Amino acid sequence: MAKLSIPQGTRDFGPDVVRKRNYIIATIRKTFELYGFQPLETPAMENTSTLLGKYGEEGDRLIFKILNNGDILGQAQMAKDSRELSLLLCEKSLRYDLTIPFARYVAMNHGKLQLPFRRYQIQPVWRGDRPQAGRYREFYQCDADVVGSNSLINEVELLKIYDTVLTDLQLTGYELRINNRKVLAGLAELVGRPDLMTDITVAIDKLDKIGESGVRQELLTRGLTDTETDKAMAFISLSGTNEQKLERLSELLASSETGLKGVEELRFVLNSNLASFVSPPQLDLTLARGLNYYTGMIVEVKAPPGVNIGSIGGGGRYDDLTGLFGVPGISGVGISFGVDRIYDVLEKLGLFPVEAQESTRVIFFHPGEARLAEVFRYATQVRDRGIAVEMYPEDIKQDKQYKYAEKRGIPFIAYVEDHAPDTIFIKNIPEKQRYTIKAEELAGFGF
Amino acid sequence: MAKLSIPQGTRDFGPDVVRKRNYIIATIRKTFELYGFQPLETPAMENTSTLLGKYGEEGDRLIFKILNNGDILGQAQMAKDSRELSLLLCEKSLRYDLTIPFARYVAMNHGKLQLPFRRYQIQPVWRGDRPQAGRYREFYQCDADVVGSNSLINEVELLKIYDTVLTDLQLTGYELRINNRKVLAGLAELVGRPDLMTDITVAIDKLDKIGESGVRQELLTRGLTDTETDKAMAFISLSGTNEQKLERLSELLASSETGLKGVEELRFVLNSNLASFVSPPQLDLTLARGLNYYTGMIVEVKAPPGVNIGSIGGGGRYDDLTGLFGVPGISGVGISFGVDRIYDVLEKLGLFPVEAQESTRVIFFHPGEARLAEVFRYATQVRDRGIAVEMYPEDIKQDKQYKYAEKRGIPFIAYVEDHAPDTIFIKNIPEKQRYTIKAEELAGFGF
Repeated sequence: MAKLSIPQGTRDFGPDVVRKRNYIIATIRKTFELYGFQPLETPAMENTSTLLGKYGEEGDRLIFKILNNGDILGQAQMAKDSRELSLLLCEKSLRYDLTIPFARYVAMNHGKLQLPFRRYQIQPVWRGDRPQAGRYREFYQCDADVVGSNSLINEVELLKIYDTVLTDLQLTGYELRINNRKVLAGLAELVGRPDLMTDITVAIDKLDKIGESGVRQELLTRGLTDTETDKAMAFISLSGTNEQKLERLSELLASSETGLKGVEELRFVLNSNLASFVSPPQLDLTLARGLNYYTGMIVEVKAPPGVNIGSIGGGGRYDDLTGLFGVPGISGVGISFGVDRIYDVLEKLGLFPVEAQESTRVIFFHPGEARLAEVFRYATQVRDRGIAVEMYPEDIKQDKQYKYAEKRGIPFIAYVEDHAPDTIFIKNIPEKQRYTIKAEELAGFGF
Repeated sequence: MAKLSIPQGTRDFGPDVVRKRNYIIATIRKTFELYGFQPLETPAMENTSTLLGKYGEEGDRLIFKILNNGDILGQAQMAKDSRELSLLLCEKSLRYDLTIPFARYVAMNHGKLQLPFRRYQIQPVWRGDRPQAGRYREFYQCDADVVGSNSLINEVELLKIYDTVLTDLQLTGYELRINNRKVLAGLAELVGRPDLMTDITVAIDKLDKIGESGVRQELLTRGLTDTETDKAMAFISLSGTNEQKLERLSELLASSETGLKGVEELRFVLNSNLASFVSPPQLDLTLARGLNYYTGMIVEVKAPPGVNIGSIGGGGRYDDLTGLFGVPGISGVGISFGVDRIYDVLEKLGLFPVEAQESTRVIFFHPGEARLAEVFRYATQVRDRGIAVEMYPEDIKQDKQYKYAEKRGIPFIAYVEDHAPDTIFIKNIPEKQRYTIKAEELAGFGF
């Protein structure tokens, strides 16, 4: 028999991991709902035609395609290359992200939806990337978007959601960085190259990876002159408080209508009277975010500097989500949490609470046939209090049952002994405490 | 642009449906954990070789296969038929159920697992069935299994889980029906045709669909004589209480060692001293369950008769889960909840509680720019109490905001008015109540 395995880039999540992931996801979900976001789930499979052309050429290649049923051999013989063959053979594909299925859903249901529509969606997505450390072929995305509202109140609330969730997760030192695409458009005008707005954005977006000199080089390569590059570099190097930066931006972008609009939007979003933050958003003019569909605020959440994990979330405003599907004019703004990376951060910093690491709280040892019904009753009584209880199902030596409890990390063991009717012996393993109680005291015992 | 659609047999789940489904799933999960079951998640994709041959020929055809990357055209030219082609082109396939991935997981990790291992798993599965009413190509399964223990205590606890979950869901009139495969083996011996045990089981399993005369006909077709068929029919028609049936079975099966073992197992599981049930399990000798791998207790849960939905769950004991994957000797017992069907039952009977149908509890109307910060503060204050709040993001006429709130089913609206500083007006829409409170009273207001 061949060695058992699972496909490259996929993972089994055992109990310890699922519990900790569920803790993260439950915290996010609770906050989404607190802000009025509503759950949506779309199918794992979409029509291939819904997905193709939405993620660039590279993306098209990385979409997992699902083989049609029926006479695929006949179809196979009609194809002239592998790409054409894959399209002939696969009408359906696996979800690649949550944004396009959401856009498809909104476009399909826009007559019925109450706008603004706040939805959140927490589901796995699949990508045929080459597997490597921290990059998987199946992973969860966790998105919240508001569509059908241009109000910047949405931006403020989404930033509050980041702050609330990360604070609830006991994380400190994370950074909420924001910028605005209109300001970057203003920058392109300022340097005299509005035609190169996208190139400038792409270059700036690499700052973290290639450093200042790298960005300078990239700007030159992409067609800016030395002087233009100097202007751009000076712009993104602006320092000071949010207020100082905004002041300076107003001056620099005085001649750019778009740029000033961006500054105004930033002022609204950063207005500390509206909302208070544990980690207030910081204006970061070097923040660009690669995705071309953003048109207003962009945001990125950085893990605390010490853990060296980088971005744990991001998002922004886009002007036309559903235009791709024939329903123009629905703008939106959204954020996303990187659950896998947040998991790694909490793990590195030891921030998972005990509750997220504990499963069964009490185990009753098998008492032998004679008192089985009695112990069943005890177990039921404790479960009725909402406490997770196992009964060890096999009638074996107590030290073996004890070992099982220990390895499973069950804190309380409880058992009866032949010589002691109506008496329960309890040990708290981690705290090395022993108790002997009467059966009628079980209801009040503090497990 | 082509009309937008999703693949046949798949579904979008909008907010109302997700909330209600989550209510069912959360109830099941809570109970699984109360009984010491631990969460497991396996990848959507398994190696095709892991799944093939596990679900019969029909099953093999219904497995969704995922196209390999790379030179599929070259591979395509080597295949001689569509079946061979699909295997050449697809190393990976989508999960078809949760049992085989669980068996694969246990086999891959059996050195590390603490046995008995109680796992639960709630994930979607995919099947290429022809879509029809109530049958989908993507649906959730919801399983709990104990492996590595032969104790019948597990059977009792799993039956208790059914009873607890369905009672928590406010369902009444459901039926827990149990039988034992060893008793059916005894029946085959009794009629003198132990060689036809599977045929007899398959025929009995159809009783619900084809009635008594149909089963009789099927038994004859499958090779039983008239006399043998009479014996079988008399056996499955035994009536009376559980105790009466068990008594009668002991006599009938006196010469069948296997049969008597089955009776003994049933006696243990049905022993009402061990556990008390809201709907106690009923011995149903006509229950057979189609799956051939069951070897001990089998169980099926029937929806209340009125709703005409049939089975909402089932399971049983199997002797050798992981033998398929080269690790013999690990037996187990498990149950499954049919989430889609339970959904339909609760919907038909109007049993979803208000909490499962409500999203946002309070909406604050947009107060205009001047008092925006103030209302933001109010909203935050209510959210800090764990109450879901929306702020209407657009500064539009109040009656439009009111309509939005009404259509969304948000029970409380709250707003400020220009002439009334530090005053909040609140309406409870469903109860047609109005309140006028001072800002400092908000903290204590009962939303």
